[in-house]
Amino acid sequence: MTIHTIQLPDMKKTILTLTLLILAVSLVTAQKKITNLPDLPGYVTLKCDFHLHTVFSDGQVWPLNRVDEAIRDGLDAISITDHLEYTPKKDFIPVDHNAAWKLCEAYAQERNLILVHGTEITRKMPPGHFNALFIKDANLIAKDSVWDNFEEVIKQGGFLQWNHPGWKAQEPDGIPKLYDMHKRLIKNGWLHGIELYNDASHYPLVFSFCEENNITLIGNSDVHGIISERYKEPEHRPMTLVFAKERSHDSLKEAMFAGRTMVYFGEKLAGREEFAKPFFYQCVAVRKPYYQNDKTIFFEVTNKSDVPFYLVNGVKDAPAAITLEANSVTRVAVSKKVTSPLVYDVNNVITGEKKILQIELKY
Amino acid sequence: MTIHTIQLPDMKKTILTLTLLILAVSLVTAQKKITNLPDLPGYVTLKCDFHLHTVFSDGQVWPLNRVDEAIRDGLDAISITDHLEYTPKKDFIPVDHNAAWKLCEAYAQERNLILVHGTEITRKMPPGHFNALFIKDANLIAKDSVWDNFEEVIKQGGFLQWNHPGWKAQEPDGIPKLYDMHKRLIKNGWLHGIELYNDASHYPLVFSFCEENNITLIGNSDVHGIISERYKEPEHRPMTLVFAKERSHDSLKEAMFAGRTMVYFGEKLAGREEFAKPFFYQCVAVRKPYYQNDKTIFFEVTNKSDVPFYLVNGVKDAPAAITLEANSVTRVAVSKKVTSPLVYDVNNVITGEKKILQIELKY
Amino acid sequence: MTIHTIQLPDMKKTILTLTLLILAVSLVTAQKKITNLPDLPGYVTLKCDFHLHTVFSDGQVWPLNRVDEAIRDGLDAISITDHLEYTPKKDFIPVDHNAAWKLCEAYAQERNLILVHGTEITRKMPPGHFNALFIKDANLIAKDSVWDNFEEVIKQGGFLQWNHPGWKAQEPDGIPKLYDMHKRLIKNGWLHGIELYNDASHYPLVFSFCEENNITLIGNSDVHGIISERYKEPEHRPMTLVFAKERSHDSLKEAMFAGRTMVYFGEKLAGREEFAKPFFYQCVAVRKPYYQNDKTIFFEVTNKSDVPFYLVNGVKDAPAAITLEANSVTRVAVSKKVTSPLVYDVNNVITGEKKILQIELKY
Amino acid sequence: MTIHTIQLPDMKKTILTLTLLILAVSLVTAQKKITNLPDLPGYVTLKCDFHLHTVFSDGQVWPLNRVDEAIRDGLDAISITDHLEYTPKKDFIPVDHNAAWKLCEAYAQERNLILVHGTEITRKMPPGHFNALFIKDANLIAKDSVWDNFEEVIKQGGFLQWNHPGWKAQEPDGIPKLYDMHKRLIKNGWLHGIELYNDASHYPLVFSFCEENNITLIGNSDVHGIISERYKEPEHRPMTLVFAKERSHDSLKEAMFAGRTMVYFGEKLAGREEFAKPFFYQCVAVRKPYYQNDKTIFFEVTNKSDVPFYLVNGVKDAPAAITLEANSVTRVAVSKKVTSPLVYDVNNVITGEKKILQIELKY
Repeated sequence: MTIHTIQLPDMKKTILTLTLLILAVSLVTAQKKITNLPDLPGYVTLKCDFHLHTVFSDGQVWPLNRVDEAIRDGLDAISITDHLEYTPKKDFIPVDHNAAWKLCEAYAQERNLILVHGTEITRKMPPGHFNALFIKDANLIAKDSVWDNFEEVIKQGGFLQWNHPGWKAQEPDGIPKLYDMHKRLIKNGWLHGIELYNDASHYPLVFSFCEENNITLIGNSDVHGIISERYKEPEHRPMTLVFAKERSHDSLKEAMFAGRTMVYFGEKLAGREEFAKPFFYQCVAVRKPYYQNDKTIFFEVTNKSDVPFYLVNGVKDAPAAITLEANSVTRVAVSKKVTSPLVYDVNNVITGEKKILQIELKY
Repeated sequence: MTIHTIQLPDMKKTILTLTLLILAVSLVTAQKKITNLPDLPGYVTLKCDFHLHTVFSDGQVWPLNRVDEAIRDGLDAISITDHLEYTPKKDFIPVDHNAAWKLCEAYAQERNLILVHGTEITRKMPPGHFNALFIKDANLIAKDSVWDNFEEVIKQGGFLQWNHPGWKAQEPDGIPKLYDMHKRLIKNGWLHGIELYNDASHYPLVFSFCEENNITLIGNSDVHGIISERYKEPEHRPMTLVFAKERSHDSLKEAMFAGRTMVYFGEKLAGREEFAKPFFYQCVAVRKPYYQNDKTIFFEVTNKSDVPFYLVNGVKDAPAAITLEANSVTRVAVSKKVTSPLVYDVNNVITGEKKILQIELKY
Repeated sequence: MTIHTIQLPDMKKTILTLTLLILAVSLVTAQKKITNLPDLPGYVTLKCDFHLHTVFSDGQVWPLNRVDEAIRDGLDAISITDHLEYTPKKDFIPVDHNAAWKLCEAYAQERNLILVHGTEITRKMPPGHFNALFIKDANLIAKDSVWDNFEEVIKQGGFLQWNHPGWKAQEPDGIPKLYDMHKRLIKNGWLHGIELYNDASHYPLVFSFCEENNITLIGNSDVHGIISERYKEPEHRPMTLVFAKERSHDSLKEAMFAGRTMVYFGEKLAGREEFAKPFFYQCVAVRKPYYQNDKTIFFEVTNKSDVPFYLVNGVKDAPAAITLEANSVTRVAVSKKVTSPLVYDVNNVITGEKKILQIELKY
Repeated sequence: MTIHTIQLPDMKKTILTLTLLILAVSLVTAQKKITNLPDLPGYVTLKCDFHLHTVFSDGQVWPLNRVDEAIRDGLDAISITDHLEYTPKKDFIPVDHNAAWKLCEAYAQERNLILVHGTEITRKMPPGHFNALFIKDANLIAKDSVWDNFEEVIKQGGFLQWNHPGWKAQEPDGIPKLYDMHKRLIKNGWLHGIELYNDASHYPLVFSFCEENNITLIGNSDVHGIISERYKEPEHRPMTLVFAKERSHDSLKEAMFAGRTMVYFGEKLAGREEFAKPFFYQCVAVRKPYYQNDKTIFFEVTNKSDVPFYLVNGVKDAPAAITLEANSVTRVAVSKKVTSPLVYDVNNVITGEKKILQIELKY
């Protein structure tokens, strides 16, 4: 059986012994997967999921599980964001919007996971759902009027993230729209981030919203159930890659407000070219030709990241398409007739609402 | 994102639409795996796990998850048995020992899962931990004295199951012992079942306890975390196979009190020969020889169950050992010199504290 | 190391011992997976792959491997069909078109696998590639003129199967066409089968060719490399399901000429309605309702086959779509408002070039 | 279907087109897995398998498959070593001991795999089986007397490797023994390597043989069938890690003769401490403590290799055992009572017949 201590009056000693035993075991059991998602020059890449639910709203697990899952997945930071206005278990679990935070704070610290205090403002559209991140007290944010919600988030120095803006339950056509309230938030400088990706939904239009209004691109799991059941190996949860000056809560916050992020979902990456391009070159290295004959030059391309790259639209006489599988070396044979640079579009790296990354293989 | 309804006063209509949408989806999504564990002549084999924890004691998931997990695993019956005396989350979740039952009763019924009302009496050794199954009200069982616990279980017509009797936290040598209180329970006819297997621990001695005192053999997961993480495909959780007259709550209860069970854990089956032998022959069929030459007869043995069978100690000139893999056909070639019946011991079918099943392959 | 006997003059005895040892081991090691693909009333369903290559043409493995792979996959019959006119390894392996047959005949018989003597006539389009199955001597079929090839196949009582008729290397648009030579074959009654499916290509038009001309529908792997690498668990190789009077070479041949087949590829089944409909009902059983409330009736649908079924186009007020996962029980909840029969189209069971199966769930 | 060109006289053009098509596809399809097995300071780590069979002796695949498999597995070098004296397929495949070499030489070169010319001398014990590696012509080595075999290997500048010295078919007790012929080989300086590991057999005594006589430690797969079926993901084939000055055939040869190797099999590494110790520290990094409280210091240990490390025999008050899973970060919590260095034995790194590596975690 799993270890379960026994709390009877006459058992103090047993409890003590057991507790020590449990501690001894847990000293060395937390295993964190190494993900191969490189740092950028000058920045450390923090892997983050800012949208998680627990039994304190409509999720299915105890908050500590979210910390354990995140460590197993190799994340650097999470935020537990239970709904303020939707607490369907309240007949069994009294409402305290800070409960998950209180339960997890020390637990995360001892495990070297950055825990971001958060909550989810849960309103009909407009304005829809919003996560308040980097806050100080979620109970204070729970107010009748949504604008009061927002004001309190700002007052606490929080980061306001618009969630799944094209959620079909609220936008039947699936297209996110900027309503007056969103425009007012933007005007105030209060809309800091928008989810380009949530669970299994991608909202391409969000890229333009963010570019035009200087808003941070975000991607999250919004998981309610079990991460390992929702994303079966070798799938991964959607996440936000944040390029921080160092691995700390405050550096993370600074980078989020500064907009230094990419979104990683499925086999896709989305982010501004200023981040996407160096990220690609940190993943991919072109080796010197190892062999040639009369007609052909052979070289290898190393992709030491967990992301495959799908290169398409090759130049004349060059391979039309090249797949650089994750954590693999790809052999490329190029005809000596090719004279122009080996330029490709990277089909799965999104750099705008309708744009993908262009790169060059220099051999 | 996962569907989460929104409970704001002005959203009645949205809620209604969403609820209908959710219902429509859930109408056909519950998929139950077919397990290949055959019925016995005259009985239907019910797959059961009578030992599960949730956030209402020291478990990590919401009770409905235990129902979902059980359906996915193809179980017929479960019991949620949170600790009476150990409720470490009580600062966040007020204690109600019937909460999981109340939450799951209708949910399980609509999903055709038999839910057995249960709880876990959690005491130091002796007498240790006991599950009370087929009870009516767990709150009434929570009393100061352990004997009062037992009396109330009996009063409610419950089935008393001794859990992990050799648990090392309570019996450092791992050997279960019958203390005075256990003997008294047995004398009263109050000890109805004992766990031969719990989580990852096998207590062979329990087989003798049960045989000598007419007690039912039980095996359970005692899971606190996530079933799919604890038992990764193709592993399965430990379970009790109950041979019931029909698939119903009352038939299950009758069979449990009558002792018609086997325990299925890992690749092992344990049960009295009267059940183990027909179970084997329901799984395994020997086909007529399909070919022979001067020296050898060739035939196939079909094992259409999920349990592999490891046959050992073959007679003279016969194959010394035969593995009948699960859901497979095994080709057997027998020398014509073999004259005696093709008798084997089945290494992984336990029929006593120190006994394994013997069978014959009749070709 | 793997067992490899040593053939030195002074080692006769060692070899004998080793050979006996090898035999002893091999007596019980061949494990055949049980596939859940039901028989039809009056017929046994034989799982067959009639298109396989080895090192004797452009394949990568030794012929015995094809037998081992087939047994592991639970097949009943295979044909090794190396190219007559394409033998790229001939500098190392002298051409003998019967070599694979000679090597495998006894080996397959001892393993209860039906081996069909075959070869592949390999011509440009028209007429393209053809398998000759159930032949007596492949060397006699190797002739200069393709029509001489055909005549010899017929003379040997063979079954002529047109392979991958829309193969893009021969038909750049991927559309199979009946050229004069095909029409002449049909007129002669010499075109017995056509591949509706080959490797990863599906030719829907073939269904009409077969219906209009009374030709047998076939599906094969055409594997050249390793089956387990080409079709990774839980994928399966494409196969022809043949409904034979009994499990024997001659019954198989009779059924093939009589056109009693279906093609099974990926999650799809293709065959005439007279076979597809009973096949579906052998897989799927609707259980009696186990529960109902004011508005809804709940029942379970059991799919005890390896094929999932995707039911679509539900009637008014019924679930619009139901997925019956393979080897699973699906819970269905139907509104009491539904009055018409619960009729569905089965999206993945093809019964004509542009037709899918229609079934009814009777609860 | 798989691409198979058609060689009929009137099809020249088609062949040309097809060949071009095939080339175009193959230009970018060879994917090599990145293995995380670090280089040593001053050396590059070459992953090698020097013992492989094909259809040219008793193996089951065409030689080119061995190249493809090796690339997929991320190897740097292989040798195909078909038996000289055991050619059971000779009725179908004429004997040419250089055939595999001729077939693979250019193929491997274009794919950046180092191909070592080899063969297997296949004799009864003594002296048993030997691989001749880095040879020039295998046909010249095939002679009646085994000593003539050896002399020719030496004459060609070859590396002589004693294979599976405790193979039970030749040494029923499984214990390798140095017979007179072995001693004579050693005396001559002709015994360059011995397999410490072959297929699934580990011969610990070989470590002493090698240490005492300055012989190179070797580990190989000796595969006859399909690599991916014999070693199912995430298992890996046994291999020799060679620490070469650069990634080239000649550097590899120099390192082999110089004895700079380790053997990697299952989760185990075996090699002299001078290689094992720096290898461990190239895999494992201890991070600075990230947190501490009154009693405990917390730090992380990164294992960025594919090899897990099992640390045991911790000092007083330190964790007794620590598992550093492959490609993972392990959290370690150490009591402030610990004053001595954090020394551990590494249970799965073998540095002698009866010795394992000792390391220190410096935090």
